[in-house]
Amino acid sequence: MSIHPHSSHPVFRYKITVAYDGTAYAGWQVQPVQVTVQQRIEETLKRLSGETVKVHGSGRTDGGVHAQGQVAHFDLTKKWVCGYLLKGMNAVLPQDIRILRLSRAKPDFHARRSAVKKEYRYFIWNGAVMDPCRRLYATHVRQTLDIKAMQAAAKVLVGRHDFASFTANPNVEVESTVREVFSLTVRQQGPLVVIRAASEGFLYKMVRSLTGLLLRVGQGHVKPDEVREILASKVRTARVPTAPPKGLFLWRVWY
Amino acid sequence: MSIHPHSSHPVFRYKITVAYDGTAYAGWQVQPVQVTVQQRIEETLKRLSGETVKVHGSGRTDGGVHAQGQVAHFDLTKKWVCGYLLKGMNAVLPQDIRILRLSRAKPDFHARRSAVKKEYRYFIWNGAVMDPCRRLYATHVRQTLDIKAMQAAAKVLVGRHDFASFTANPNVEVESTVREVFSLTVRQQGPLVVIRAASEGFLYKMVRSLTGLLLRVGQGHVKPDEVREILASKVRTARVPTAPPKGLFLWRVWY
Repeated sequence: MSIHPHSSHPVFRYKITVAYDGTAYAGWQVQPVQVTVQQRIEETLKRLSGETVKVHGSGRTDGGVHAQGQVAHFDLTKKWVCGYLLKGMNAVLPQDIRILRLSRAKPDFHARRSAVKKEYRYFIWNGAVMDPCRRLYATHVRQTLDIKAMQAAAKVLVGRHDFASFTANPNVEVESTVREVFSLTVRQQGPLVVIRAASEGFLYKMVRSLTGLLLRVGQGHVKPDEVREILASKVRTARVPTAPPKGLFLWRVWY
Repeated sequence: MSIHPHSSHPVFRYKITVAYDGTAYAGWQVQPVQVTVQQRIEETLKRLSGETVKVHGSGRTDGGVHAQGQVAHFDLTKKWVCGYLLKGMNAVLPQDIRILRLSRAKPDFHARRSAVKKEYRYFIWNGAVMDPCRRLYATHVRQTLDIKAMQAAAKVLVGRHDFASFTANPNVEVESTVREVFSLTVRQQGPLVVIRAASEGFLYKMVRSLTGLLLRVGQGHVKPDEVREILASKVRTARVPTAPPKGLFLWRVWY
């Protein structure tokens, strides 16, 4: 329990882990017109608690991007039994948004600011014909990908670098474009190719940009050696395309 | 090439392997009002070839049931290059129906009558909260399933038996309700439980009925010993529920 900074009401902070199918949503963050995941969760909490709350996510996800383990926090003036609140939320939320875990958090816990590591996974269906049941959850690439070349390129990108070449709006309100990528791996499981990216934090559209370049490498359009040069250039060019959102999952956030 | 029985036109027979997301369809077989997979394929062939053709599947699948490897055949008066016809069909078909393979077949090949073995797989999400990205492709069972009990029950059902207790309409136009089940396995992969059933052929709703009983066993409502008695009774009762269609995939057909 803590005291709300702008009132004398005590508040309780809750931490949730959320999975969602992003197909029907304009991303995580509340938008003026289109429906978002954050909005649906805030509406659910309003209906259950009667309180108007703001839900703070660990970060935004773009429209069509999915989540296996998005984390968010919010405050309520009531002390809820966590199991009841979790079941209540899942009963009210649409089926494409699920609360996986819910717990009380300390008042200084912040879903975005307290995060120390994030993992995204990008799924590619690398076969002649798309699997229809994966069409909303993976990107289809017909041409056989050179996985070894992609793995070599991925190694270049691991570490602490200025990733200005890999963000959509490098000059807009970002203090620094330097980030440490802890790991970036490319693994093949039959026709499925999975890219896993872990970092202290990613820039806007960074994972889709890293994936876009790795796909160009896998298709033979960019050589692994060129990746070092693109990274060093610190300028976003057409050599780094943004991979489609539907293959991307926010997989896990660490605190 | 062969001569069409009711005309002097030569016809060429084609065999296709089809994958589909059954969510939006009233099953495989053409219905008076609702849209079906067979109908969409027939419309596609009409548009590509100008010919009105009937597409013969290896068997029906119910509304909401998916396929990874449905097989069908049809006849066209034109000799198509198979690769072109396959690409043309996938270009016209909606994204939730995909032709995986297309080849010429001998005139006596029949997708239903020539089949010697079929495999279905049933996917169960056995966790507290459903994975939202699997909600259309697996059935959610919250209660932890007793996998060993399900495996013991499955063993009882393997072999040549009268499966009258496991079909929805045992008396309607079926010559015999005796079938040989070659294998029936239950495997756990994390929160996912997969039932695989292979037979020379299944009765109407038989796989969903076998799954329905195995789920009752897994939940402790039916003992593995009772399964033998239910099988021997040859009468369909409420002890054998029909599992929901969305977890079921027609996986493969052998010829």
